[in-house]
Amino acid sequence: MKRKPTATAPATSPAIATAEILSLRAGTRPRKRNDCLTREEPLEIRVRGKSVAVTMRTPGHDAELAAGFLVTEGLLHRRSDVIEIAPCQQGEAALHGNVLNVFLAPSVEINFERLTRHVFASSSCGLCGKASIESVQQQFPPVTSRMRINAKVLLALPEKLRAAQETFQQTGGLHAAALFDARGKMLVLREDVGRHNAVDKVIGHAYLHGLLPLDRQLLLVSGRASFEILQKALAAKIPIVAAVSAPSSLAVEFARESGQTLVGFLRRNTMNVYAHPERIVSR
Amino acid sequence: MKRKPTATAPATSPAIATAEILSLRAGTRPRKRNDCLTREEPLEIRVRGKSVAVTMRTPGHDAELAAGFLVTEGLLHRRSDVIEIAPCQQGEAALHGNVLNVFLAPSVEINFERLTRHVFASSSCGLCGKASIESVQQQFPPVTSRMRINAKVLLALPEKLRAAQETFQQTGGLHAAALFDARGKMLVLREDVGRHNAVDKVIGHAYLHGLLPLDRQLLLVSGRASFEILQKALAAKIPIVAAVSAPSSLAVEFARESGQTLVGFLRRNTMNVYAHPERIVSR
Repeated sequence: MKRKPTATAPATSPAIATAEILSLRAGTRPRKRNDCLTREEPLEIRVRGKSVAVTMRTPGHDAELAAGFLVTEGLLHRRSDVIEIAPCQQGEAALHGNVLNVFLAPSVEINFERLTRHVFASSSCGLCGKASIESVQQQFPPVTSRMRINAKVLLALPEKLRAAQETFQQTGGLHAAALFDARGKMLVLREDVGRHNAVDKVIGHAYLHGLLPLDRQLLLVSGRASFEILQKALAAKIPIVAAVSAPSSLAVEFARESGQTLVGFLRRNTMNVYAHPERIVSR
Repeated sequence: MKRKPTATAPATSPAIATAEILSLRAGTRPRKRNDCLTREEPLEIRVRGKSVAVTMRTPGHDAELAAGFLVTEGLLHRRSDVIEIAPCQQGEAALHGNVLNVFLAPSVEINFERLTRHVFASSSCGLCGKASIESVQQQFPPVTSRMRINAKVLLALPEKLRAAQETFQQTGGLHAAALFDARGKMLVLREDVGRHNAVDKVIGHAYLHGLLPLDRQLLLVSGRASFEILQKALAAKIPIVAAVSAPSSLAVEFARESGQTLVGFLRRNTMNVYAHPERIVSR
């Protein structure tokens, strides 16, 4: 997350904004230049006309984000639950494209109470709207997938992720999440200013393509692994979660209880396995 | 945020947990060892008996976190507003120390509606509980501080931050925030699994010591600068915010409108100034 911007070209993606900045280097005169910035804007998700979440996100793949959010909240199950996801066309909202309507099949029952009245997710928050400590831990069954992955395949994944992170090269400000199969083939990669949004986007992508459950896929995240990332993965039945950086204590506890393999500090030659190492074949 | 753990000593801080992990290195046999993990646990904040927030945080300096959260939500103004902040002693909550009661002076009026019914902040979320896009942007007046800082002093701050981040050395999983004066002297440093929690803790520390407004202080954060970090700084009237990594587009817009100086990619020899460079003296 700490690379310097390398591009000064104008923005070519909805994820990128440009701004004139002052660049200072010790011993030289300050100079003005254009810089690329990761866009951060609020997105409101409405289900049957009700606002269920406002999340600070990087624009792009918004329908995937909305779908993934609702899947990982345990509200959507079958692909046929969703008829359409479309930007709101009414009033102020239509101007910025920052309000999304999710149209559900009439047969789908939604427990709005479960979402609390106003779920609010910030750019890096996947737990918002839970009313008490007890409700933080959602109820999804443990994973039982017999998926295995070779350690060598795993060690090669961060480099694949980096190579695919084109937006990252421009701003240095984006989290990435990607799904890989046991052979190390990437299914989808998404980026966002919020770590949990990137995860929602990849899960939403898979959901919209009818690919759930993801019980033969690995989720790789570019930064740290928090409890909420593990929980979202569990909602999609993902058996292996790997992070380039450190997991938190609660992420480790959660993974151990939910039957998920958790890998941290996945680097070129090394990794730490914090839970369920039986899925990793090291020779 | 991506350093490897260097310590295998048992936990000595409430911020640290230990776990037995499997360490894999290409070409060698996997070996078991103990690893340090950043602790992540929920904290429920109660004001006058009402639950106003549940945040995923790293234990430690919880009273500061609660105070800082309430200050940056615009609910606390004078030091005398708070009589005491103490762990709940009743029932289940007392066991884990994860519920805090904030006792206010009887004269303080609290607009609970402003907080929405159930604010929920995750480990990296400082915006939770806002019900719609319009309410995301809080109302604090722009800063007018005439504070100035020398560029050389600024360039030396990240190294001071790193040197003081002892916990970071152990787990690689913590965000840091610190306050510095114009001479580069550190007032306080706090760490947390959530970036915005670290900011709440330093602001809460200053509040509890009667040091608000912080109109002669600079806030330095170890990672990225999001919109919410700028907003929290504004609540405490902090005129300069510096980040080791990238700011988001909304952070830049917010800083420009609120009169805050925003520095990003602050490194050994270079920095980018995204808003109000007039406070930085480069010779």
